[in-house]
Amino acid sequence: MAKDFSSRDENYAQWYNDLVFKADMAENSAVRGCMVIKPYGYAIWEKMQAALDKKFKDTGHVNAYFPLFIPKSFFSKEASHVEGFAKECAVVTHYRLKNDPDGKGVIVDESAKLEEELIVRPTSETIIWDTYRTWIKSYRDLPLLINQWANVVRWEMRTRLFLRTAEFLWQEGHTAHATSEEAVEETERMLEVYADFAENWMALPVLRGTKSPNERFAGAIETYCIEALMQDGKALQAGTSHFLGQNFAKAFEVQYLSKENKLEYVWATSWGVSTRLIGALIMAHSDDNGLVLPPKLAPTQVVIIPIYKTDDQLALISEKAEQIMKNLQDKGISVKYDKRDTYKPGWKFNEYEFKGVPVRLVMGPRDLENGTVEVSRRDTLEKAVYQLSDIETKIEHLLINIQDNLYQKALDFRESKTSKADSWDEFVDLLDNKGGFIYAHWDGTPETEQRIKEETKATIRCIPLNSKLDEGTCILTGRPSKGRVVFARAY
Amino acid sequence: MAKDFSSRDENYAQWYNDLVFKADMAENSAVRGCMVIKPYGYAIWEKMQAALDKKFKDTGHVNAYFPLFIPKSFFSKEASHVEGFAKECAVVTHYRLKNDPDGKGVIVDESAKLEEELIVRPTSETIIWDTYRTWIKSYRDLPLLINQWANVVRWEMRTRLFLRTAEFLWQEGHTAHATSEEAVEETERMLEVYADFAENWMALPVLRGTKSPNERFAGAIETYCIEALMQDGKALQAGTSHFLGQNFAKAFEVQYLSKENKLEYVWATSWGVSTRLIGALIMAHSDDNGLVLPPKLAPTQVVIIPIYKTDDQLALISEKAEQIMKNLQDKGISVKYDKRDTYKPGWKFNEYEFKGVPVRLVMGPRDLENGTVEVSRRDTLEKAVYQLSDIETKIEHLLINIQDNLYQKALDFRESKTSKADSWDEFVDLLDNKGGFIYAHWDGTPETEQRIKEETKATIRCIPLNSKLDEGTCILTGRPSKGRVVFARAY
Repeated sequence: MAKDFSSRDENYAQWYNDLVFKADMAENSAVRGCMVIKPYGYAIWEKMQAALDKKFKDTGHVNAYFPLFIPKSFFSKEASHVEGFAKECAVVTHYRLKNDPDGKGVIVDESAKLEEELIVRPTSETIIWDTYRTWIKSYRDLPLLINQWANVVRWEMRTRLFLRTAEFLWQEGHTAHATSEEAVEETERMLEVYADFAENWMALPVLRGTKSPNERFAGAIETYCIEALMQDGKALQAGTSHFLGQNFAKAFEVQYLSKENKLEYVWATSWGVSTRLIGALIMAHSDDNGLVLPPKLAPTQVVIIPIYKTDDQLALISEKAEQIMKNLQDKGISVKYDKRDTYKPGWKFNEYEFKGVPVRLVMGPRDLENGTVEVSRRDTLEKAVYQLSDIETKIEHLLINIQDNLYQKALDFRESKTSKADSWDEFVDLLDNKGGFIYAHWDGTPETEQRIKEETKATIRCIPLNSKLDEGTCILTGRPSKGRVVFARAY
Repeated sequence: MAKDFSSRDENYAQWYNDLVFKADMAENSAVRGCMVIKPYGYAIWEKMQAALDKKFKDTGHVNAYFPLFIPKSFFSKEASHVEGFAKECAVVTHYRLKNDPDGKGVIVDESAKLEEELIVRPTSETIIWDTYRTWIKSYRDLPLLINQWANVVRWEMRTRLFLRTAEFLWQEGHTAHATSEEAVEETERMLEVYADFAENWMALPVLRGTKSPNERFAGAIETYCIEALMQDGKALQAGTSHFLGQNFAKAFEVQYLSKENKLEYVWATSWGVSTRLIGALIMAHSDDNGLVLPPKLAPTQVVIIPIYKTDDQLALISEKAEQIMKNLQDKGISVKYDKRDTYKPGWKFNEYEFKGVPVRLVMGPRDLENGTVEVSRRDTLEKAVYQLSDIETKIEHLLINIQDNLYQKALDFRESKTSKADSWDEFVDLLDNKGGFIYAHWDGTPETEQRIKEETKATIRCIPLNSKLDEGTCILTGRPSKGRVVFARAY
């Protein structure tokens, strides 16, 4: 299983690719930039979806579905949106194929040319706000709190499985509000939903902040984000929540009659996370032995493997194991009992270790005699022998413990990789030799941000929320600054 | 609410459109043929998905995700598949837009033309079997039981909300097997999963059968289907399950090494149901007062409405109502307590009746005094006063009763609309004056089937499973037949 598998130190990028491919998470398809999400990878996405969907519903949102295609002209309606989104995208120009008269398969039927080209959605603000125009008439129709689970396409030139693909799966929330305050409140609420999901489900500590203007969503007044740190010291944007002001309402003429009987433009937010989170999950916790998954998102949380020589032994072990499996399942824990005789125990140990199953139970004839079971945890690779009495509660606690440990480990790592830089030389030295998040002063101009990016490939990941006034001077220009922002090289 | 709403007798097609639109199920979008599924319609789809997904997993399937785009050349690889699918479809030819030099928005960048056009998937057999080639090497890799939840696009010229749209949501199962027998068994198993879902969740009785060659899926050896009858006497194909033989394995060179160490082509099935089921659900049960939903798929199963004059009364009723709501929710029943003061009770009655909420509870001051509640069921529109003692169990039973009643009513309707025709005149008369399913003899040739379709618009809906030998003569040609098949006009 793990042969031909790079270590993180050798080649982090290769380690990641090997892991994704060999752990049956995803693979490249015959279509450039589009991935196949394999069953094991998709099972993690299903767990993420279920947890997020519940959070969205608990905060009052409902799901709906809008068209895959967007008329080209829609993109031109919001001036900055078109710059950001309507460029590298998949364009549908025809709606029919016909048999090649030369007998070589099928060719595009030139007579079936669309009057207006359709864009495969890169994000759905335009088509959704075009729809909202008829849905929103009065203050009674607000707030409108809608989410969509969908596929989107952005024609990326350099793609990496999960992290950057031409097609990806995501959810996009699109809400409409009567006031600016309510919309900002919603933007911040959903950022916190994402942060909570990252920290408590993915075991991934995140910084909460806003983007600098250069990094803002095309069409937003303010973009909030959560930023995580990967094991190679690079940052990864894990989710964004945008306050869109009245930009889309004005572009698509969405007005409502207020309680005071006045026509007002509607205030908007949008927010999204994608299958990119699976890439973040892999990179945050996994090690040179393969995947490490936090119990809350692991498709299989516990695997039980029997060790036996005779059929009689297997029968006795199976009786015990199946009882434990059932009891664990009653607690809502997902368990697999692998008694296949086509694979040896050693092969199974490697397989489940590589796939990141959080807890492995092994039962042999001696365990039966002693009323014990061998328990291994994937995060620390520690083994221990447990008495069987009340084993289900012990396993339940162990899973919680593993979840907490992964979070703490990731947090400790992030702390160890978080620095302050007070001069340009220090900044460059930290970037090159330590990586991670660097808190530094910046003069607040897009030009400086751009120059820093060009010279170091580092970008402002976020302006931290609730940061205190902390006067200083910009690391590049020496001009005054009122607070530090967070720089990093990023995915 | 229900004003401007056609009755079924007046204009069935208009009644359907009105219902879909006014009950907030779906609407047409700015993109020709693509619908917006509104939150209430999508909530039904989510319930359908959850029930089906569980059935798929209970029968050993896992989910995965394959690309939205398929290279054009893939369609030419399976000869009959290309005829059926690669014609009316959305074709992506370019991957970039650019600013119009005339300053009028964006135009297609002609320099960004794809070398090979991409087709937006109309169904995924080709891309999936291209992927399976690397996944399947040995008999140990079989069976491969995979399902995908996805959007697909077929460029339909005449579209109707849910029933026929350019883009629709569906699931497509694609399985691979070592033997023909196993693949046929899977095809039949999934047909039964669909039939069970239709009958026990949608309360929709269905005929199980196979398609005649003319109606078979492009690329299949045998297509199994379930056929339901709508209230206008027209049939609707509610799901299909295809035995694909080795056609796709041969087209995409998917072979496995058998236990006997021989290279063999793999056997395939595919099966799918779509958002069309929502159209079937609406047309099967709803009436001139609006939607009627079977409790198992109703987003809200019970609504509680207070009737009061004073705030004190409301407080007392709310206390009771919220307790009932909580108790019902503990039983897994979805309940809404609508105490909004912006709408009158009468308006609410109409609203929930129109939206098909199965059970309505009304509580007024007199109910409080008497320890009663007024209970209305949507299916029969009957009202009764219930004692509050053990009200939750009574409601639970009532919901089961409504579910059963809807099924029985639909079954009775179908029986009343099922006939036998022994002559051409009788056949035409039944079609024109009664509608429904007509069992008739057919000589087994595609030519006769085609002629019958041209002359009457009726098609063979299915050759019923397990039909007994029943010799007769074809209604059109008088040639011998060994059994009756089911004809109907269909959606």
